[in-house]
Amino acid sequence: MLRSHTCGELRLSDVSKEVVLCGWVQTSRDLGGLTFVDLRDRFGVTQLSFNMDTDPVMCEKGRQLGREFVVQAKGEVVERSNKNKTIPTGEIEIIVKELTVLNKSVTPPFTIEDQTNGGDELRMKYRYLDLRRQVVRKNLELRHRMAIETRNYLDKQHFLEVETPVLIKSTPEGARDFVVPSRMNQGQFYALPQSPQTFKQLLMVSGFDRYYQIVKCFRDEDLRADRQPEFTQIDCEMSFVEQEDILNTFEGLVKHLFKTVKGVDIPEMPRMSYADAMKYYGNDKPDTRFEMRFTELNEVVKGVGFKVFDEAELVVAICAKGAADYTRKQLDELTDFVKRPQIGATGLVYARYGNDGSIKSSVDKFYNEDELKKWVKICNAELGDLLLILAGNAEKTRKAMSELRLEMGNRLGLRDKNTFSCLWVVDFPLLEWNEGDTNLLASLAGRWVAKHHPFTSPKPEDIALLDSDPGAVRANAYDMVINGVEVGGGSIRIYNKDLQAKMFSVLGFTNEEAQKQFGFLMNAFEFGAPPHGGIAFGFDRLCSLFGGADSIRDFIAFPKNNAGRDMMIESPSEISEEQLHELKLILRQDEVKKN
Amino acid sequence: MLRSHTCGELRLSDVSKEVVLCGWVQTSRDLGGLTFVDLRDRFGVTQLSFNMDTDPVMCEKGRQLGREFVVQAKGEVVERSNKNKTIPTGEIEIIVKELTVLNKSVTPPFTIEDQTNGGDELRMKYRYLDLRRQVVRKNLELRHRMAIETRNYLDKQHFLEVETPVLIKSTPEGARDFVVPSRMNQGQFYALPQSPQTFKQLLMVSGFDRYYQIVKCFRDEDLRADRQPEFTQIDCEMSFVEQEDILNTFEGLVKHLFKTVKGVDIPEMPRMSYADAMKYYGNDKPDTRFEMRFTELNEVVKGVGFKVFDEAELVVAICAKGAADYTRKQLDELTDFVKRPQIGATGLVYARYGNDGSIKSSVDKFYNEDELKKWVKICNAELGDLLLILAGNAEKTRKAMSELRLEMGNRLGLRDKNTFSCLWVVDFPLLEWNEGDTNLLASLAGRWVAKHHPFTSPKPEDIALLDSDPGAVRANAYDMVINGVEVGGGSIRIYNKDLQAKMFSVLGFTNEEAQKQFGFLMNAFEFGAPPHGGIAFGFDRLCSLFGGADSIRDFIAFPKNNAGRDMMIESPSEISEEQLHELKLILRQDEVKKN
Repeated sequence: MLRSHTCGELRLSDVSKEVVLCGWVQTSRDLGGLTFVDLRDRFGVTQLSFNMDTDPVMCEKGRQLGREFVVQAKGEVVERSNKNKTIPTGEIEIIVKELTVLNKSVTPPFTIEDQTNGGDELRMKYRYLDLRRQVVRKNLELRHRMAIETRNYLDKQHFLEVETPVLIKSTPEGARDFVVPSRMNQGQFYALPQSPQTFKQLLMVSGFDRYYQIVKCFRDEDLRADRQPEFTQIDCEMSFVEQEDILNTFEGLVKHLFKTVKGVDIPEMPRMSYADAMKYYGNDKPDTRFEMRFTELNEVVKGVGFKVFDEAELVVAICAKGAADYTRKQLDELTDFVKRPQIGATGLVYARYGNDGSIKSSVDKFYNEDELKKWVKICNAELGDLLLILAGNAEKTRKAMSELRLEMGNRLGLRDKNTFSCLWVVDFPLLEWNEGDTNLLASLAGRWVAKHHPFTSPKPEDIALLDSDPGAVRANAYDMVINGVEVGGGSIRIYNKDLQAKMFSVLGFTNEEAQKQFGFLMNAFEFGAPPHGGIAFGFDRLCSLFGGADSIRDFIAFPKNNAGRDMMIESPSEISEEQLHELKLILRQDEVKKN
Repeated sequence: MLRSHTCGELRLSDVSKEVVLCGWVQTSRDLGGLTFVDLRDRFGVTQLSFNMDTDPVMCEKGRQLGREFVVQAKGEVVERSNKNKTIPTGEIEIIVKELTVLNKSVTPPFTIEDQTNGGDELRMKYRYLDLRRQVVRKNLELRHRMAIETRNYLDKQHFLEVETPVLIKSTPEGARDFVVPSRMNQGQFYALPQSPQTFKQLLMVSGFDRYYQIVKCFRDEDLRADRQPEFTQIDCEMSFVEQEDILNTFEGLVKHLFKTVKGVDIPEMPRMSYADAMKYYGNDKPDTRFEMRFTELNEVVKGVGFKVFDEAELVVAICAKGAADYTRKQLDELTDFVKRPQIGATGLVYARYGNDGSIKSSVDKFYNEDELKKWVKICNAELGDLLLILAGNAEKTRKAMSELRLEMGNRLGLRDKNTFSCLWVVDFPLLEWNEGDTNLLASLAGRWVAKHHPFTSPKPEDIALLDSDPGAVRANAYDMVINGVEVGGGSIRIYNKDLQAKMFSVLGFTNEEAQKQFGFLMNAFEFGAPPHGGIAFGFDRLCSLFGGADSIRDFIAFPKNNAGRDMMIESPSEISEEQLHELKLILRQDEVKKN
């Protein structure tokens, strides 16, 4: 090794040792007679000391060192007179006796500090410099630790990590696949997996019993903030289980991660039905760090002549604790918030329940105090609380109220990044109607599509509804939600060929299409498929949640931007005519945009 | 869980417990009054017992169970009268009281036994059934254990696992890339990585110090036995190291794997130069489980009028211990062996050193006993040994002799799969001349190409030769070889922009091409790149070696055949017009073969 120690390990007990350190020049301070250089590596920072009186030649060398130079320094560990108690190596320094510049550096385009002056674009282009910043590197160290602990837990539970193929077959029933032209099988394509779903199910048919994999998956989606075309899943499957077995096993995994990585104890995770999540939070991934559940007011607001409420399918309130003193300005801001096009409410009604017991609403014209008291009561409001009320079409109003609830949670400081509230949302609908989602192939518009995926089993008691009322069929499907973020989801699978064929038929597949795309799986079900189910966690998202960040990008070493481009290596890029020729592909030149 | 225990865990101490097992019917024996069913899962086999006298209804049910049916059985653990000492559960059986068929099975196309009657093609098509066979599943369990222990070792050595991107940029300087058309960036393509090489080097520039990843890589190669278009590497990189540091660190990894996974102690691994490997074994991955090193005979065979030897650039011998009694037939077989077109020798000369001290050669006409004694002496032959001699062009003769040596190793039983001989081959040439390798783009023919890759550093003392004699430049490159298999290889990297630019120039890149393809890396070298180096192990190959198998295919859950096809899912396959349209691609229909 070119060093005897890292820049993070020397202590007072090492004083008088001769050591060799390697690292980058973080800062250099020239105090005339003395020059101090902070030498940085992944493990820490150690101060190098140069003295003009005792060794002027060496001191001159030290003065020449520029920011981010790579240096090898030999010298003696001595006790510092001016100790820095904020870093573990702060009690010692190195009197440098030999100094070698291993590599120089031009001036970086932004500062290598926790608070950098580099903008997003510059940081992405010079990602290798951005990764030198401790705050970014710590994120990837966290990710490493999460992966290690995930494997430790699952290995102890007898899960086998099995690698599934990356070059698979395009089955465009869901989001778009990335495809890979085959040179050896001309005119044919592989596809990159959106998940290893069918393979992990086949492993269950193979009797592997418990499978997992931390695995890259791919989805060719349109521009979307904080989505990556390639992302990582903790992908798992178990045999001979019922839903509760899976929930318990993976609740255990997440608790283990919180405990070992963050030292946080997570209590038992509640189970909430999808129907309740929508009813009480307007959201299938409710942020349960705070209550503020919805109260439906239809029973107490209708029939007094307030047309907005009378004509509404749903009138719904939240109770913001202690916010009765909100100013007119604050309430106007909230009204503007709900009227934004992304939220789309037409207005906001409020009622202040003053500390003096008075109730003042924005619709006093229509409701007298006795009537308002009913609102307060049904909402369990206390003195000093503020009721916020939206009305209209049930679905849209719930969505809008969910946004308002989260906004109030922010305003009232109820969404602390270091508090973690976990739950399971269960009993999802099996299907949803696709009006024309642009992330799906256009040919799938106007059809039922699987809410989870086509291999999810319907609840046995709902199977009869598959023909008569597909939208009402509930699935054995579940999501884990933490702080309003869906971190994982899964289902108990179909393991019967006929039911799987029925499911494909409901999804609009002909028998031939189903057989062509998924024949291998349906055939496998004929050879003794066990009951099985599984789950996948979004690993990038889970890491960012543990790291207390909103964006996943800084938990990925080399992320792509929202247009799917890697700005550092400048990819994607054009390929050579020779490559296109070998693949027997022609670009539709007339429509190719020159980049 | 649908079971209380697995099929591998019940013992005598569990007798009289009520248990529930789930699994597959391995075999069923109907002995009239008694029916026995072997129930199998990943963890083992447990015998279910049915008695026609005591429970005729249940016994009838048991008799109906077909091979590979999936069954849930409740019952009582009892001691077996007829114990099976060959399996851990062989002392007990289950008196079945409740029996549920969870899924039926049609008859499998081949038997689910260690020795199956299924051919290769059938096994690949029904891989999910093939994986039920214990011998195949054990391979994947070994692979899981290898991955866990690899991570344990590297984590303890402060390596960070960092995921590098799969959608990268095509840089066709080596083997062919698989490419991925971008829908969002039309006319442009991603490429799948042949290795994370540039990214791991950038992580070193970022100061990550020690990186590893167990990662899928991709190479679009022509048909080749036992190669897969996607394969897995243990990919590693370290900063502030010299070659010996890397060799020691990864010698440690492989020793750790042998110790923890196989219980085998591996001694210190010798270092052998590439030049010596070629000289003494005719092979840069010598199988050192046995000696039989080459002896060059030029000095002792020339000038007596035997034209074949006189005109040969190289005359080389191996000494096969104790094979002097080889029959004429055996020697003819060896002659046929070396004359096969793949080996290409024109003939084989031998000399028997009989136990009586006599020496008989196939060229007695030209060499008298005194001369032959010189051969025996220079080869260190002992009484009873057989000398085998080839002559001709040096390079071709060494290659042919290497094949003959391995063949003799096989014939003499010197290549035991449970013996492991590890070594490092070092000081590889930096470059090799590409006559027209069909696995490279045609445009690279008639050029120097990197033997390892373009980022490998030349030995400092050889840099001057880069212009005058590129083929003579040695690299700081090394391979780990076990039992004649190259399991890993790596190098100390270039970390200086000018030297990297020089290297690209030697490889025939214009400045513009080098900048366009690898500008990001050369720019990174300007910001303080540390000295660094690394290695990658072929994980599939390493697992197959540990498993004592020749083929990697059974250490991959879902392998592709030699044409790159997945026979189970039938991939690659055609994609829809809609997909092609969105990607703005046209197939060159006239040349597309219909499959």
